[in-house]
Amino acid sequence: VSDIQDLTRRMREFTEARDWSQFHDPKSLALALVGEVGELAELLQWVRHEDQTTAVRAEALRSRLGEELADVLLYLLRLADVVGVDLSQAAQQKLDRNEQRFPPHLQRGIAPRKD
Amino acid sequence: VSDIQDLTRRMREFTEARDWSQFHDPKSLALALVGEVGELAELLQWVRHEDQTTAVRAEALRSRLGEELADVLLYLLRLADVVGVDLSQAAQQKLDRNEQRFPPHLQRGIAPRKD
Amino acid sequence: VSDIQDLTRRMREFTEARDWSQFHDPKSLALALVGEVGELAELLQWVRHEDQTTAVRAEALRSRLGEELADVLLYLLRLADVVGVDLSQAAQQKLDRNEQRFPPHLQRGIAPRKD
Amino acid sequence: VSDIQDLTRRMREFTEARDWSQFHDPKSLALALVGEVGELAELLQWVRHEDQTTAVRAEALRSRLGEELADVLLYLLRLADVVGVDLSQAAQQKLDRNEQRFPPHLQRGIAPRKD
Repeated sequence: VSDIQDLTRRMREFTEARDWSQFHDPKSLALALVGEVGELAELLQWVRHEDQTTAVRAEALRSRLGEELADVLLYLLRLADVVGVDLSQAAQQKLDRNEQRFPPHLQRGIAPRKD
Repeated sequence: VSDIQDLTRRMREFTEARDWSQFHDPKSLALALVGEVGELAELLQWVRHEDQTTAVRAEALRSRLGEELADVLLYLLRLADVVGVDLSQAAQQKLDRNEQRFPPHLQRGIAPRKD
Repeated sequence: VSDIQDLTRRMREFTEARDWSQFHDPKSLALALVGEVGELAELLQWVRHEDQTTAVRAEALRSRLGEELADVLLYLLRLADVVGVDLSQAAQQKLDRNEQRFPPHLQRGIAPRKD
Repeated sequence: VSDIQDLTRRMREFTEARDWSQFHDPKSLALALVGEVGELAELLQWVRHEDQTTAVRAEALRSRLGEELADVLLYLLRLADVVGVDLSQAAQQKLDRNEQRFPPHLQRGIAPRKD
Protein backbone atom coordinates (compact mmCIF):
# COMPACT_ATOMS: atom_id res chain seq x y z
CA VAL A 1 0.00 0.00 0.00
CA SER A 2 1.17 3.55 -0.75
CA ASP A 3 1.63 5.56 2.42
CA ILE A 4 1.41 8.81 0.44
CA GLN A 5 -2.06 7.77 -0.70
CA ASP A 6 -2.96 6.59 2.76
CA LEU A 7 -1.90 9.86 4.44
CA THR A 8 -3.63 11.85 1.71
CA ARG A 9 -6.86 9.97 2.34
CA ARG A 10 -6.59 10.44 6.11
CA MET A 11 -6.02 14.20 5.70
CA ARG A 12 -9.04 14.46 3.39
CA GLU A 13 -11.28 12.61 5.84
CA PHE A 14 -9.91 14.66 8.75
CA THR A 15 -10.73 17.85 6.84
CA GLU A 16 -14.20 16.81 5.76
CA ALA A 17 -15.19 15.56 9.22
CA ARG A 18 -14.54 19.09 10.53
CA ASP A 19 -16.09 20.88 7.55
CA TRP A 20 -12.75 22.56 6.87
CA SER A 21 -12.75 21.99 3.12
CA GLN A 22 -14.14 25.48 2.76
CA PHE A 23 -10.78 26.85 3.99
CA HIS A 24 -8.65 24.55 1.86
CA ASP A 25 -8.40 26.38 -1.42
CA PRO A 26 -4.95 26.21 -3.08
CA LYS A 27 -3.73 29.69 -2.13
CA SER A 28 -4.74 29.30 1.52
CA LEU A 29 -3.09 25.87 1.70
CA ALA A 30 0.07 27.29 0.15
CA LEU A 31 0.16 29.92 2.91
CA ALA A 32 -0.40 27.21 5.54
CA LEU A 33 2.50 25.26 4.04
CA VAL A 34 4.67 28.38 4.30
CA GLY A 35 3.69 28.72 7.95
CA GLU A 36 4.92 25.21 8.70
CA VAL A 37 8.11 25.69 6.67
CA GLY A 38 8.69 28.81 8.78
CA GLU A 39 8.45 26.78 11.99
CA LEU A 40 10.93 24.29 10.59
CA ALA A 41 13.32 27.13 9.71
CA GLU A 42 13.04 28.53 13.23
CA LEU A 43 14.24 25.26 14.70
CA LEU A 44 17.38 25.37 12.57
CA GLN A 45 18.20 29.06 12.20
CA TRP A 46 20.63 29.51 15.11
CA VAL A 47 22.10 26.01 15.15
CA ARG A 48 25.82 26.47 14.47
CA HIS A 49 26.82 25.20 11.07
CA GLU A 50 29.67 23.12 12.43
CA ASP A 51 27.42 21.49 15.06
CA GLN A 52 24.47 20.69 12.81
CA THR A 53 24.95 16.97 12.38
CA THR A 54 25.11 16.23 16.07
CA ALA A 55 22.63 18.95 17.11
CA VAL A 56 19.77 17.65 14.95
CA ARG A 57 20.20 14.14 16.33
CA ALA A 58 19.81 15.21 19.97
CA GLU A 59 16.46 13.75 20.97
CA ALA A 60 14.72 17.01 21.91
CA LEU A 61 15.51 18.76 18.65
CA ARG A 62 14.96 15.71 16.45
CA SER A 63 11.55 15.18 17.95
CA ARG A 64 10.51 18.79 17.24
CA LEU A 65 11.95 18.56 13.73
CA GLY A 66 9.88 15.40 13.22
CA GLU A 67 6.72 17.27 14.15
CA GLU A 68 7.41 20.21 11.86
CA LEU A 69 8.50 17.99 8.97
CA ALA A 70 5.23 16.08 9.46
CA ASP A 71 3.20 19.31 9.40
CA VAL A 72 4.86 20.37 6.15
CA LEU A 73 4.17 16.95 4.63
CA LEU A 74 0.51 16.94 5.67
CA TYR A 75 -0.22 20.34 4.10
CA LEU A 76 1.78 19.37 1.03
CA LEU A 77 -0.34 16.22 0.58
CA ARG A 78 -3.51 18.22 1.18
CA LEU A 79 -2.52 20.80 -1.45
CA ALA A 80 -1.64 18.08 -3.98
CA ASP A 81 -5.01 16.44 -3.32
CA VAL A 82 -6.95 19.68 -3.80
CA VAL A 83 -5.05 20.45 -7.00
CA GLY A 84 -5.58 16.95 -8.36
CA VAL A 85 -1.92 15.91 -8.49
CA ASP A 86 -0.79 12.32 -7.83
CA LEU A 87 2.20 13.33 -5.74
CA SER A 88 3.83 9.92 -5.50
CA GLN A 89 3.84 9.59 -9.27
CA ALA A 90 4.93 13.21 -9.80
CA ALA A 91 7.91 12.69 -7.47
CA GLN A 92 8.94 9.43 -9.18
CA GLN A 93 8.81 11.16 -12.57
CA LYS A 94 10.77 14.16 -11.32
CA LEU A 95 13.49 11.84 -10.01
CA ASP A 96 13.55 10.00 -13.36
CA ARG A 97 14.10 13.33 -15.11
CA ASN A 98 16.74 14.51 -12.64
CA GLU A 99 18.68 11.29 -13.11
CA GLN A 100 18.85 12.00 -16.84
CA ARG A 101 19.55 15.73 -16.52
CA PHE A 102 22.42 15.25 -14.10
CA PRO A 103 24.59 12.34 -15.27
CA PRO A 104 26.58 11.20 -12.22
CA HIS A 105 29.98 11.22 -13.91
CA LEU A 106 29.57 14.86 -14.98
CA GLN A 107 28.30 16.08 -11.65
CA ARG A 108 30.52 14.53 -9.04
CA GLY A 109 31.06 17.04 -6.25
CA ILE A 110 29.82 20.06 -8.20
CA ALA A 111 27.06 21.92 -6.40
CA PRO A 112 23.69 20.93 -7.87
CA ARG A 113 22.14 23.50 -10.18
CA LYS A 114 18.72 24.91 -9.67
CA ASP A 115 16.20 23.94 -12.33
CA VAL B 1 6.16 -1.20 0.12
CA SER B 2 6.15 2.33 1.51
CA ASP B 3 6.55 4.92 -1.25
CA ILE B 4 7.88 7.47 1.23
CA GLN B 5 10.68 5.06 2.09
CA ASP B 6 11.19 4.22 -1.56
CA LEU B 7 11.47 7.88 -2.64
CA THR B 8 13.73 8.61 0.34
CA ARG B 9 16.06 5.80 -0.70
CA ARG B 10 16.09 6.95 -4.33
CA MET B 11 16.95 10.53 -3.29
CA ARG B 12 19.76 9.27 -1.06
CA GLU B 13 21.25 7.15 -3.86
CA PHE B 14 20.83 10.01 -6.34
CA THR B 15 22.70 12.31 -3.96
CA GLU B 16 25.51 9.89 -3.18
CA ALA B 17 26.09 8.96 -6.82
CA ARG B 18 26.85 12.65 -7.50
CA ASP B 19 28.85 13.20 -4.31
CA TRP B 20 26.34 15.87 -3.27
CA SER B 21 26.00 14.72 0.35
CA GLN B 22 28.58 17.35 1.25
CA PHE B 23 26.00 20.05 0.34
CA HIS B 24 23.10 18.38 2.13
CA ASP B 25 23.43 19.59 5.68
CA PRO B 26 20.12 20.44 7.41
CA LYS B 27 20.30 24.23 7.08
CA SER B 28 21.21 24.11 3.39
CA LEU B 29 18.43 21.61 2.69
CA ALA B 30 15.97 23.82 4.56
CA LEU B 31 16.94 26.72 2.28
CA ALA B 32 16.54 24.48 -0.77
CA LEU B 33 13.08 23.52 0.47
CA VAL B 34 12.23 27.22 0.80
CA GLY B 35 13.38 27.79 -2.77
CA GLU B 36 10.96 25.16 -4.05
CA VAL B 37 8.11 26.44 -1.88
CA GLY B 38 8.80 29.85 -3.42
CA GLU B 39 8.38 28.45 -6.91
CA LEU B 40 5.10 26.86 -5.88
CA ALA B 41 3.91 30.18 -4.45
CA GLU B 42 4.80 31.97 -7.69
CA LEU B 43 2.52 29.66 -9.66
CA LEU B 44 -0.42 30.56 -7.43
CA GLN B 45 0.17 34.18 -6.43
CA TRP B 46 -1.83 35.98 -9.13
CA VAL B 47 -4.49 33.34 -9.73
CA ARG B 48 -7.76 35.01 -8.85
CA HIS B 49 -9.30 33.65 -5.68
CA GLU B 50 -12.65 33.04 -7.29
CA ASP B 51 -11.08 31.15 -10.22
CA GLN B 52 -8.71 28.95 -8.22
CA THR B 53 -10.55 25.67 -8.40
CA THR B 54 -10.83 25.67 -12.16
CA ALA B 55 -7.51 27.40 -12.81
CA VAL B 56 -5.40 24.80 -10.99
CA ARG B 57 -7.05 21.98 -12.92
CA ALA B 58 -6.19 23.40 -16.32
CA GLU B 59 -3.60 20.99 -17.69
CA ALA B 60 -0.73 23.49 -18.12
CA LEU B 61 -0.93 24.85 -14.58
CA ARG B 62 -1.62 21.50 -12.95
CA SER B 63 1.39 19.99 -14.63
CA ARG B 64 3.68 22.78 -13.36
CA LEU B 65 2.14 22.52 -9.90
CA GLY B 66 2.87 18.78 -9.98
CA GLU B 67 6.53 19.48 -10.69
CA GLU B 68 6.91 22.03 -7.92
CA LEU B 69 4.99 19.92 -5.41
CA ALA B 70 7.33 17.05 -6.31
CA ASP B 71 10.41 19.24 -5.78
CA VAL B 72 9.15 20.28 -2.36
CA LEU B 73 8.47 16.64 -1.44
CA LEU B 74 11.90 15.46 -2.59
CA TYR B 75 13.79 18.03 -0.50
CA LEU B 76 11.48 17.36 2.44
CA LEU B 77 12.25 13.63 2.28
CA ARG B 78 15.95 14.38 1.94
CA LEU B 79 15.91 16.66 4.97
CA ALA B 80 14.01 14.09 7.05
CA ASP B 81 16.55 11.46 6.01
CA VAL B 82 19.53 13.60 6.95
CA VAL B 83 17.96 14.50 10.29
CA GLY B 84 17.11 10.87 11.05
CA VAL B 85 13.31 11.25 11.12
CA ASP B 86 10.96 8.50 9.90
CA LEU B 87 8.63 10.89 8.11
CA SER B 88 5.86 8.40 7.37
CA GLN B 89 5.60 7.47 11.04
CA ALA B 90 5.92 11.11 12.19
CA ALA B 91 3.03 12.12 9.90
CA GLN B 92 0.81 9.25 11.07
CA GLN B 93 1.46 10.21 14.69
CA LYS B 94 0.80 13.89 14.02
CA LEU B 95 -2.53 13.00 12.45
CA ASP B 96 -3.40 10.79 15.43
CA ARG B 97 -2.73 13.72 17.73
CA ASN B 98 -4.65 16.20 15.58
CA GLU B 99 -7.67 13.89 15.57
CA GLN B 100 -7.69 14.00 19.35
CA ARG B 101 -6.93 17.70 19.68
CA PHE B 102 -9.69 18.75 17.30
CA PRO B 103 -12.81 16.69 18.03
CA PRO B 104 -14.98 16.89 14.92
CA HIS B 105 -18.20 17.90 16.68
CA LEU B 106 -16.50 20.91 18.34
CA GLN B 107 -14.76 22.09 15.20
CA ARG B 108 -17.31 21.93 12.45
CA GLY B 109 -16.81 24.88 10.14
CA ILE B 110 -14.59 26.85 12.52
CA ALA B 111 -11.28 27.82 10.98
CA PRO B 112 -8.55 25.42 12.17
CA ARG B 113 -6.25 26.81 14.83
CA LYS B 114 -2.53 26.94 14.48
CA ASP B 115 -0.60 24.70 16.84
CA VAL C 1 17.54 61.03 7.04
CA SER C 2 17.03 57.59 5.57
CA ASP C 3 14.95 55.40 7.87
CA ILE C 4 16.26 52.27 6.13
CA GLN C 5 19.78 53.31 7.09
CA ASP C 6 18.66 54.27 10.56
CA LEU C 7 16.91 50.94 11.21
CA THR C 8 19.88 49.06 9.74
CA ARG C 9 22.22 50.86 12.12
CA ARG C 10 19.96 50.17 15.10
CA MET C 11 19.77 46.46 14.25
CA ARG C 12 23.55 46.28 13.91
CA GLU C 13 24.10 47.94 17.28
CA PHE C 14 21.43 45.75 18.88
CA THR C 15 23.20 42.66 17.54
CA GLU C 16 26.66 43.71 18.54
CA ALA C 17 25.63 44.74 22.07
CA ARG C 18 24.45 41.14 22.60
CA ASP C 19 27.40 39.51 20.84
CA TRP C 20 24.96 37.93 18.38
CA SER C 21 26.98 38.72 15.26
CA GLN C 22 28.40 35.21 15.49
CA PHE C 23 24.92 33.85 14.67
CA HIS C 24 24.24 36.32 11.85
CA ASP C 25 25.83 34.67 8.84
CA PRO C 26 23.81 34.99 5.61
CA LYS C 27 22.32 31.47 5.56
CA SER C 28 21.20 31.65 9.18
CA LEU C 29 19.68 35.09 8.65
CA ALA C 30 17.86 33.82 5.56
CA LEU C 31 16.34 31.04 7.68
CA ALA C 32 15.36 33.59 10.34
CA LEU C 33 13.68 35.66 7.64
CA VAL C 34 11.76 32.57 6.50
CA GLY C 35 10.63 32.00 10.08
CA GLU C 36 9.13 35.48 10.23
CA VAL C 37 7.53 35.17 6.80
CA GLY C 38 5.96 31.96 8.09
CA GLU C 39 4.42 33.79 11.02
CA LEU C 40 3.03 36.40 8.65
CA ALA C 41 1.55 33.65 6.46
CA GLU C 42 -0.10 32.04 9.49
CA LEU C 43 -1.95 35.26 10.27
CA LEU C 44 -3.45 35.32 6.78
CA GLN C 45 -3.89 31.67 5.81
CA TRP C 46 -7.49 31.08 6.91
CA VAL C 47 -8.80 34.61 6.37
CA ARG C 48 -11.54 34.24 3.78
CA HIS C 49 -10.59 35.72 0.44
CA GLU C 50 -13.75 37.77 0.18
CA ASP C 51 -13.29 39.20 3.68
CA GLN C 52 -9.62 40.08 3.43
CA THR C 53 -9.86 43.82 3.01
CA THR C 54 -11.99 44.35 6.08
CA ALA C 55 -10.41 41.53 8.14
CA VAL C 56 -6.88 42.93 7.93
CA ARG C 57 -8.03 46.34 9.07
CA ALA C 58 -9.63 45.06 12.27
CA GLU C 59 -7.39 46.41 15.02
CA ALA C 60 -6.36 43.06 16.55
CA LEU C 61 -5.25 41.52 13.26
CA ARG C 62 -3.66 44.68 11.90
CA SER C 63 -1.61 45.08 15.04
CA ARG C 64 -0.29 41.51 14.79
CA LEU C 65 0.39 41.95 11.07
CA GLY C 66 2.35 45.09 11.93
CA GLU C 67 4.55 43.13 14.31
CA GLU C 68 5.25 40.34 11.85
CA LEU C 69 5.86 42.74 8.96
CA ALA C 70 8.32 44.55 11.24
CA ASP C 71 10.11 41.31 12.10
CA VAL C 72 10.47 40.47 8.41
CA LEU C 73 11.83 43.95 7.70
CA LEU C 74 14.33 43.84 10.55
CA TYR C 75 15.85 40.53 9.42
CA LEU C 76 15.82 41.71 5.83
CA LEU C 77 17.78 44.84 6.77
CA ARG C 78 20.17 42.76 8.86
CA LEU C 79 20.78 40.35 5.98
CA ALA C 80 21.37 43.21 3.53
CA ASP C 81 23.82 44.76 5.99
CA VAL C 82 25.77 41.52 6.45
CA VAL C 83 25.90 40.96 2.70
CA GLY C 84 27.02 44.52 2.04
CA VAL C 85 23.99 45.64 0.01
CA ASP C 86 22.62 49.19 0.17
CA LEU C 87 18.99 48.10 0.26
CA SER C 88 17.44 51.54 -0.22
CA GLN C 89 19.47 52.08 -3.39
CA ALA C 90 18.88 48.51 -4.63
CA ALA C 91 15.11 48.94 -4.25
CA GLN C 92 15.12 52.32 -6.04
CA GLN C 93 17.08 50.78 -8.92
CA LYS C 94 14.79 47.75 -9.10
CA LEU C 95 11.78 50.03 -9.32
CA ASP C 96 13.48 52.05 -12.07
CA ARG C 97 14.02 48.85 -14.05
CA ASN C 98 10.50 47.57 -13.44
CA GLU C 99 9.06 50.84 -14.70
CA GLN C 100 10.93 50.34 -17.96
CA ARG C 101 10.24 46.63 -18.28
CA PHE C 102 6.50 47.00 -17.76
CA PRO C 103 5.27 50.00 -19.75
CA PRO C 104 1.93 50.99 -18.21
CA HIS C 105 -0.03 51.12 -21.45
CA LEU C 106 0.95 47.53 -22.34
CA GLN C 107 0.26 46.10 -18.92
CA ARG C 108 -3.04 47.55 -17.84
CA GLY C 109 -4.97 44.90 -15.92
CA ILE C 110 -2.80 41.99 -17.07
CA ALA C 111 -1.41 39.99 -14.18
CA PRO C 112 2.22 40.99 -13.55
CA ARG C 113 4.79 38.53 -14.80
CA LYS C 114 7.43 37.00 -12.64
CA ASP C 115 10.96 38.02 -13.46
CA VAL D 1 12.36 62.31 3.89
CA SER D 2 11.60 58.72 4.86
CA ASP D 3 12.79 56.31 2.17
CA ILE D 4 10.36 53.65 3.40
CA GLN D 5 7.50 56.08 2.74
CA ASP D 6 9.02 57.12 -0.55
CA LEU D 7 9.43 53.53 -1.82
CA THR D 8 5.93 52.69 -0.59
CA ARG D 9 4.49 55.58 -2.55
CA ARG D 10 6.44 54.62 -5.68
CA MET D 11 5.22 51.01 -5.48
CA ARG D 12 1.63 52.19 -5.04
CA GLU D 13 1.84 54.48 -8.07
CA PHE D 14 3.57 51.76 -10.11
CA THR D 15 0.75 49.36 -9.24
CA GLU D 16 -2.07 51.77 -9.95
CA ALA D 17 -0.61 52.92 -13.28
CA ARG D 18 -0.80 49.30 -14.47
CA ASP D 19 -4.20 48.59 -12.90
CA TRP D 20 -2.63 45.82 -10.83
CA SER D 21 -4.29 46.78 -7.53
CA GLN D 22 -6.90 44.15 -8.32
CA PHE D 23 -4.19 41.47 -7.84
CA HIS D 24 -2.76 42.99 -4.68
CA ASP D 25 -4.93 41.57 -1.94
CA PRO D 26 -3.05 40.57 1.24
CA LYS D 27 -2.97 36.79 0.66
CA SER D 28 -1.75 37.15 -2.92
CA LEU D 29 0.93 39.64 -1.87
CA ALA D 30 2.03 37.29 0.91
CA LEU D 31 2.49 34.54 -1.71
CA ALA D 32 4.43 36.95 -3.93
CA LEU D 33 6.66 37.78 -0.98
CA VAL D 34 7.26 34.05 -0.44
CA GLY D 35 8.21 33.70 -4.09
CA GLU D 36 10.90 36.36 -3.72
CA VAL D 37 12.16 34.92 -0.43
CA GLY D 38 12.47 31.61 -2.29
CA GLU D 39 14.68 33.21 -4.92
CA LEU D 40 16.85 34.68 -2.19
CA ALA D 41 17.15 31.24 -0.55
CA GLU D 42 18.17 29.68 -3.85
CA LEU D 43 21.11 32.06 -4.14
CA LEU D 44 22.40 30.97 -0.74
CA GLN D 45 21.43 27.31 -0.42
CA TRP D 46 24.60 25.63 -1.72
CA VAL D 47 27.11 28.26 -0.64
CA ARG D 48 29.43 26.49 1.78
CA HIS D 49 28.99 27.63 5.34
CA GLU D 50 32.67 28.28 5.84
CA ASP D 51 32.89 30.35 2.63
CA GLN D 52 29.80 32.47 3.16
CA THR D 53 31.37 35.73 4.20
CA THR D 54 33.65 35.95 1.18
CA ALA D 55 31.23 34.31 -1.25
CA VAL D 56 28.44 36.84 -0.71
CA ARG D 57 30.83 39.74 -1.28
CA ALA D 58 31.93 38.52 -4.69
CA GLU D 59 30.43 41.04 -7.11
CA ALA D 60 28.31 38.60 -9.15
CA LEU D 61 26.59 37.05 -6.14
CA ARG D 62 26.23 40.30 -4.21
CA SER D 63 24.58 41.95 -7.17
CA ARG D 64 22.02 39.13 -7.48
CA LEU D 65 21.43 39.17 -3.74
CA GLY D 66 20.80 42.91 -3.98
CA GLU D 67 18.11 42.33 -6.59
CA GLU D 68 16.35 39.64 -4.61
CA LEU D 69 16.59 41.57 -1.35
CA ALA D 70 15.05 44.52 -3.20
CA ASP D 71 12.20 42.36 -4.53
CA VAL D 72 11.44 41.11 -1.03
CA LEU D 73 11.45 44.67 0.30
CA LEU D 74 9.18 45.99 -2.44
CA TYR D 75 6.50 43.33 -1.85
CA LEU D 76 6.85 43.79 1.89
CA LEU D 77 6.22 47.53 1.55
CA ARG D 78 3.31 46.87 -0.77
CA LEU D 79 1.75 44.41 1.68
CA ALA D 80 2.18 46.84 4.60
CA ASP D 81 0.56 49.57 2.51
CA VAL D 82 -2.44 47.41 1.57
CA VAL D 83 -2.90 46.32 5.18
CA GLY D 84 -2.63 49.88 6.48
CA VAL D 85 0.53 49.43 8.56
CA ASP D 86 3.12 52.20 8.95
CA LEU D 87 6.09 49.88 8.56
CA SER D 88 8.79 52.35 9.57
CA GLN D 89 7.01 53.06 12.84
CA ALA D 90 6.19 49.38 13.45
CA ALA D 91 9.85 48.45 13.02
CA GLN D 92 11.05 51.22 15.35
CA GLN D 93 8.57 50.06 18.00
CA LYS D 94 9.55 46.42 17.58
CA LEU D 95 13.20 47.34 18.10
CA ASP D 96 12.27 49.36 21.21
CA ARG D 97 10.51 46.30 22.62
CA ASN D 98 13.34 43.92 21.70
CA GLU D 99 15.85 46.17 23.44
CA GLN D 100 13.83 45.86 26.63
CA ARG D 101 13.08 42.15 26.29
CA PHE D 102 16.70 41.19 25.71
CA PRO D 103 18.91 43.15 28.13
CA PRO D 104 22.41 43.08 26.67
CA HIS D 105 24.19 41.94 29.84
CA LEU D 106 21.92 38.86 30.15
CA GLN D 107 22.16 37.88 26.50
CA ARG D 108 25.78 38.16 25.56
CA GLY D 109 26.63 35.35 23.19
CA ILE D 110 23.52 33.29 23.90
CA ALA D 111 21.58 32.46 20.75
CA PRO D 112 18.62 34.82 20.42
CA ARG D 113 15.27 33.31 21.34
CA LYS D 114 12.34 33.28 19.04
CA ASP D 115 9.41 35.41 20.17
